[in-house]
Amino acid sequence: MRAAVLRQGRMVVDEFPEPVPGPGEVLVAVRACGICGSDLHFVKHAAEFLALSAEMGGVARRRPVDLSCDVHMGHEFCAEVLAAGPGTAAPRPGTLVTSMPFTVNASGARQSLSFTNDLAGGYGERMVLSASLVVEVPSGVDPNLAALTEPLAVGLHAVNRSGIKPGDAAVVLGCGPVGLTVIAGLRRAGIEPIIAADFSAARRATATAMGAHLVVDPRDEDAISAWRRIEGRRPLVVFEAVGVPGMINAALRDAPVGARIVVVGLCMQPDVIQPVFGVLKELTLQFVVTYDADEFSGALRSIAEGDMDLAPLITGVVGLDDIAQAFDDLSSPDLHTKIVVEPGR
Amino acid sequence: MRAAVLRQGRMVVDEFPEPVPGPGEVLVAVRACGICGSDLHFVKHAAEFLALSAEMGGVARRRPVDLSCDVHMGHEFCAEVLAAGPGTAAPRPGTLVTSMPFTVNASGARQSLSFTNDLAGGYGERMVLSASLVVEVPSGVDPNLAALTEPLAVGLHAVNRSGIKPGDAAVVLGCGPVGLTVIAGLRRAGIEPIIAADFSAARRATATAMGAHLVVDPRDEDAISAWRRIEGRRPLVVFEAVGVPGMINAALRDAPVGARIVVVGLCMQPDVIQPVFGVLKELTLQFVVTYDADEFSGALRSIAEGDMDLAPLITGVVGLDDIAQAFDDLSSPDLHTKIVVEPGR
Repeated sequence: MRAAVLRQGRMVVDEFPEPVPGPGEVLVAVRACGICGSDLHFVKHAAEFLALSAEMGGVARRRPVDLSCDVHMGHEFCAEVLAAGPGTAAPRPGTLVTSMPFTVNASGARQSLSFTNDLAGGYGERMVLSASLVVEVPSGVDPNLAALTEPLAVGLHAVNRSGIKPGDAAVVLGCGPVGLTVIAGLRRAGIEPIIAADFSAARRATATAMGAHLVVDPRDEDAISAWRRIEGRRPLVVFEAVGVPGMINAALRDAPVGARIVVVGLCMQPDVIQPVFGVLKELTLQFVVTYDADEFSGALRSIAEGDMDLAPLITGVVGLDDIAQAFDDLSSPDLHTKIVVEPGR
Repeated sequence: MRAAVLRQGRMVVDEFPEPVPGPGEVLVAVRACGICGSDLHFVKHAAEFLALSAEMGGVARRRPVDLSCDVHMGHEFCAEVLAAGPGTAAPRPGTLVTSMPFTVNASGARQSLSFTNDLAGGYGERMVLSASLVVEVPSGVDPNLAALTEPLAVGLHAVNRSGIKPGDAAVVLGCGPVGLTVIAGLRRAGIEPIIAADFSAARRATATAMGAHLVVDPRDEDAISAWRRIEGRRPLVVFEAVGVPGMINAALRDAPVGARIVVVGLCMQPDVIQPVFGVLKELTLQFVVTYDADEFSGALRSIAEGDMDLAPLITGVVGLDDIAQAFDDLSSPDLHTKIVVEPGR
């Protein structure tokens, strides 16, 4: 089958062996897979990221990724069931499904479906999922929208973990896919005002469509100053959804006393902060990542029931052969928000 | 009167005008004033710290400090009432008192008694306090111990704000006065185990006296590894009480998934962190500072009632003339923990 992989720092398409489902597994054909900001960061900063992961204590060691071999990515997918593995109960062939982007074996060990040398991810024609993790996509849902289940779950999880509640105000720094799903989650949680910032006029327009009450261009006014201008009294939660060096410190510098800064952008490079800002204002930096199974299936339900219309996030759809170009295009935020890859296109 | 001030980067003793209490104020004679780590940091990094304070948004602007003029410090004091200002109710002369280290005027505006060009702090023979903030020291309490009310309040506040509860484990990085008062607060809160780290054998011994269940020399084993070795299951709260660059990132690197890192050390220099550590483990960095009025008076009560014996913290007592030497000596943690200045000595 054909799949796109990271090889020597570039996304390339090549032929790979057909994946074969074992017991407890389901073979699926990928219908759509979104390109995530973390994929873009990984292409640029893979070596740093892997070195940091290896240095980090307090987590189970995952199998090391060898950058001299092909790396599979693609963790925001919607796929169609082709066949179940031996003795495995699975939705009938043709059913659209999605899954959290890992597999579990019989003893419960997880293996990632992305950033791995081992398993085909969502940037291939076919892949193997764990039957126990497969979630059926309700009928009538566009596969490209169903592929946004994963990034929406990220945004909803960030909102859940932040502890923000009606009566609080929110600032969202960055209106890429993560910032936009955070905005959608905040709007659904009844937060007002939601103030969002992005350099891109297109992304600011999408932020408004997703529910932001005020959007600002940081070249004109920073979002925390805008909050101070229009509101400035309610407890403030700041969501950092850019993930490049300097953002965390700017938030620490500008935030009001007692604010919580939720870091949902994944900066893979070292970053400089001034602890004085945090200490003197008793700020909290809360780092968040991913989601749990309930948040994942809840995100799919929100998409299926239409209570969040994520269609404005999708600004491009490409086939496998155009994936390298799509990675390049995504570095121009005025052109694109989310590009979905259709491996069968 | 005589007072020690920061002049051209050094602590020097000189003659200053007698402070005169106005309405709502009390003139006191300083009996004891502890030297705080933040005083030592300020002597080294005053210019950086003031530049950062000026750059920081979200706080009321305090009156700028001019480093080309004398700077008064000394915010951990116990003093004896000499006289009340015109029409002011105050404890009778001779009463021992302490106060949070600022004054409030009739309209409620605060003015700091430390790190200021304007008001004499605790490193002088006499100072003026706000009558409304004065707290009487119960009779029989050693003035040098009563002077530890302020640093104890800092430690108790950090424990309160952390939200730590029985059943959680604690690691305390650094056994200077702040780390030691954190340990005292954790012990009183029923936390077990408390694991503390310091390079100084003397400070580790004091940490044990204050209630740490295990102390480690970071040259042999880092404290989080020690926690993993002896316990490693309960939710962990890490208290960073060193305040030098590199400590926060080491805590992020070593902490277990979901840990809370309470930053109570005041690092006045830029610091490098790897956000990846925080994100991948969903860590929380909670910066804390000072205390409220209840925590301050509660700290004094704990000292007075003897439920915390802080005597082991005091490793030296000097007069005003030896304050510069005391500042130098405190940079050798094996020699000293807390030096108390007695201006009348």
